[in-house]
Amino acid sequence: MSYNTLRYDVADNILTLTLSRPDHLNAFTVEMAGELIDAFNRASDDDEVRAVVVTGEGRAFCAGMDLSASGNVFGLNESLKPTMDDMENRLEDPEIIAGVRDTGGRVTLAIYDCNKPVIAAINGAAVGIGATMTCAMDIRLASEHARIGFVFNKIGITPEACSSWFLPRIVGISQALEWVYSGEILKPEQALAGRFVTAVVPADQLLEEAYKIARRIAQHSPVAIAMTRQMMYRCSAQAHPIEAHKVDSLAIYYASQTSGKEGVQSFLEKRAPVFKDRTSTDMPEFYPWW
Amino acid sequence: MSYNTLRYDVADNILTLTLSRPDHLNAFTVEMAGELIDAFNRASDDDEVRAVVVTGEGRAFCAGMDLSASGNVFGLNESLKPTMDDMENRLEDPEIIAGVRDTGGRVTLAIYDCNKPVIAAINGAAVGIGATMTCAMDIRLASEHARIGFVFNKIGITPEACSSWFLPRIVGISQALEWVYSGEILKPEQALAGRFVTAVVPADQLLEEAYKIARRIAQHSPVAIAMTRQMMYRCSAQAHPIEAHKVDSLAIYYASQTSGKEGVQSFLEKRAPVFKDRTSTDMPEFYPWW
Amino acid sequence: MSYNTLRYDVADNILTLTLSRPDHLNAFTVEMAGELIDAFNRASDDDEVRAVVVTGEGRAFCAGMDLSASGNVFGLNESLKPTMDDMENRLEDPEIIAGVRDTGGRVTLAIYDCNKPVIAAINGAAVGIGATMTCAMDIRLASEHARIGFVFNKIGITPEACSSWFLPRIVGISQALEWVYSGEILKPEQALAGRFVTAVVPADQLLEEAYKIARRIAQHSPVAIAMTRQMMYRCSAQAHPIEAHKVDSLAIYYASQTSGKEGVQSFLEKRAPVFKDRTSTDMPEFYPWW
Repeated sequence: MSYNTLRYDVADNILTLTLSRPDHLNAFTVEMAGELIDAFNRASDDDEVRAVVVTGEGRAFCAGMDLSASGNVFGLNESLKPTMDDMENRLEDPEIIAGVRDTGGRVTLAIYDCNKPVIAAINGAAVGIGATMTCAMDIRLASEHARIGFVFNKIGITPEACSSWFLPRIVGISQALEWVYSGEILKPEQALAGRFVTAVVPADQLLEEAYKIARRIAQHSPVAIAMTRQMMYRCSAQAHPIEAHKVDSLAIYYASQTSGKEGVQSFLEKRAPVFKDRTSTDMPEFYPWW
Repeated sequence: MSYNTLRYDVADNILTLTLSRPDHLNAFTVEMAGELIDAFNRASDDDEVRAVVVTGEGRAFCAGMDLSASGNVFGLNESLKPTMDDMENRLEDPEIIAGVRDTGGRVTLAIYDCNKPVIAAINGAAVGIGATMTCAMDIRLASEHARIGFVFNKIGITPEACSSWFLPRIVGISQALEWVYSGEILKPEQALAGRFVTAVVPADQLLEEAYKIARRIAQHSPVAIAMTRQMMYRCSAQAHPIEAHKVDSLAIYYASQTSGKEGVQSFLEKRAPVFKDRTSTDMPEFYPWW
Repeated sequence: MSYNTLRYDVADNILTLTLSRPDHLNAFTVEMAGELIDAFNRASDDDEVRAVVVTGEGRAFCAGMDLSASGNVFGLNESLKPTMDDMENRLEDPEIIAGVRDTGGRVTLAIYDCNKPVIAAINGAAVGIGATMTCAMDIRLASEHARIGFVFNKIGITPEACSSWFLPRIVGISQALEWVYSGEILKPEQALAGRFVTAVVPADQLLEEAYKIARRIAQHSPVAIAMTRQMMYRCSAQAHPIEAHKVDSLAIYYASQTSGKEGVQSFLEKRAPVFKDRTSTDMPEFYPWW
């Protein structure tokens, strides 16, 4: 349960996930990718965790892929010559997972599937995969020391970590293109003006601000919050609102007999609700609906 | 043609739809849902109506679902145990409509299908379904007294009224998530900064500002406006712009022989156009194209 | 290779495409549409071109369709009576191309397919198709003299040039609806506040600001940039991020053996990368993947 590249600390129902290779500015490795996937899967199933805050140890958030690693920094198997047909039909084949699939994307897909809201507390440099992994997080806060760069084109590669899917949904297609074309390192004020981060705060208040958001979430029904997260990402990406309506209807129907019953009751009794549901056991039967 | 929970007033080709349960802060009931659906369907077909302004009587816009109603406030039939299969295959079954389907979503789908632009004039509290119903309206103005809250998680339920589809299209996925996770009541300045409302105006100018927008729309061809509304929502949600191009091409082709002919002619003659087309009789044959 | 309505000038790997009917405020004609399509196709294949800047000669960018042209200004064949079936099945039929398809949309689809980033330098009036064509460009800069209007409803027609697909992706659905309903002529400050343009600059610095962005792009791998452009538009429009991941994985896999190898090497050697790849010959085999 312990990791080499991360710290996984739960307190007051909030998981703080700390990227922890401070001597390497928390640079991303294949090992870190595997540990992040494990940690988000674990948080998704862990009833003690109601929200996740991700930050970096030391002065960086994550300085991108560790290019100082010897040999094949991308960790790919050059003999495979994969095709789109492989991606359509062999995506879960261990050879394709280990030798072809983008490690950053495997992490962001684990975040996407997570049942718990994820808040990025960007304390310093967040560059390359350090920036793109935060695109799959729900809310981003920056300290005054944050520096954010979508720098892949500077080293001759393309968007990764599904950032082409996430980033335009956050900031719009033109702002996204401007940043990924230039590879410019953004100051926190630029990231705020571009609506990538929701606030810029003094470094010593960054975690506390993230925890404020997380504590608010932790008061709610974990099942309703897990449903909310998946509904927002998945239903918004459908072609017609009727797809949202189908899910909404079932979600409200079942919530009205469980967490929503307590919610309404507590409202009428002018007291705080006490939600006892757990994502490990109480997700409605139609979940996952996709 | 009269309603118990609404006022339906047409003047100068603008329908003012007023939520009217002022003693209950215009709280939403199953009856109001039915009347709203009827009113938007009626406005869609009513050639006297060229734009719709929605507001609330008294000091609230709509304080959310009426939780003070006795019994089953959600109006659902607890014995049905619906599945996603029911939603895919029995959506128009009266038992499912009355006993399972989210009433808020039935309203926002009626707004979505409406042939007339819809402007929300948010005069006071717009909370829960009071907030989410406005997500399906095209433009939102707030008075200085507006308070907007996506509060469903506070009472243990999930997004409703197709808000997971509409809200991220308006404000981006991260702003949407921040608001629905917290359930915070937003001041009008926060809603403006988050791009949910287009302006905050003094209370006594709110309706006049909404009417200014509506009057401008009312000068245009009703058929071209109805086409515009459906094209913007539906084509933007397709995976490839070619889908927009197919509709654009037919729409311009037919408009160029009808309202567009008058539009160009009037432009060349330096006079105001006189559009005589009606949505009740003059929608092009390929409408609806979906 | 010379055009009647455009200038096509390449210098320092940047194509400046100048709309050039200054006596007619660069108004759009069927001839200009054909020349724009040819120019974007040519730029897409031209290895000398690494970025495109589009601007207008004289005081306008493009004053919209040339309504002063005698006869059928839309250039359509009124005897065809096309149906949606024709659009689905005969889109490439010459009769449909010439007689039915929206000329503006044929231009924006050529821009969409272009392998090179496109920057609009909006020097003056950009109205109707003059505004909507820029929606398919990646980044828009406005001079202080720019005036931007989505005016189609003023002349009784509907959105064209696939603007219903592009505009909401840039500014959100509500801002898009507000502008297309009103047909208002926007000042540059309004376009900036609405996030349609990324900056407003003095007229005499407009081209230089556009070139700064273009020069930055021109330093990167042309293949990685072409991939980036298509990935951002196409993957973001898919329903699930896994679709981005499939493309990301192949793109990173092949880039890591070509431009990405040089990129990482140059980074480790603390020197500027030298990218020698060409879009004409070096696009990876799986491109186009759609």
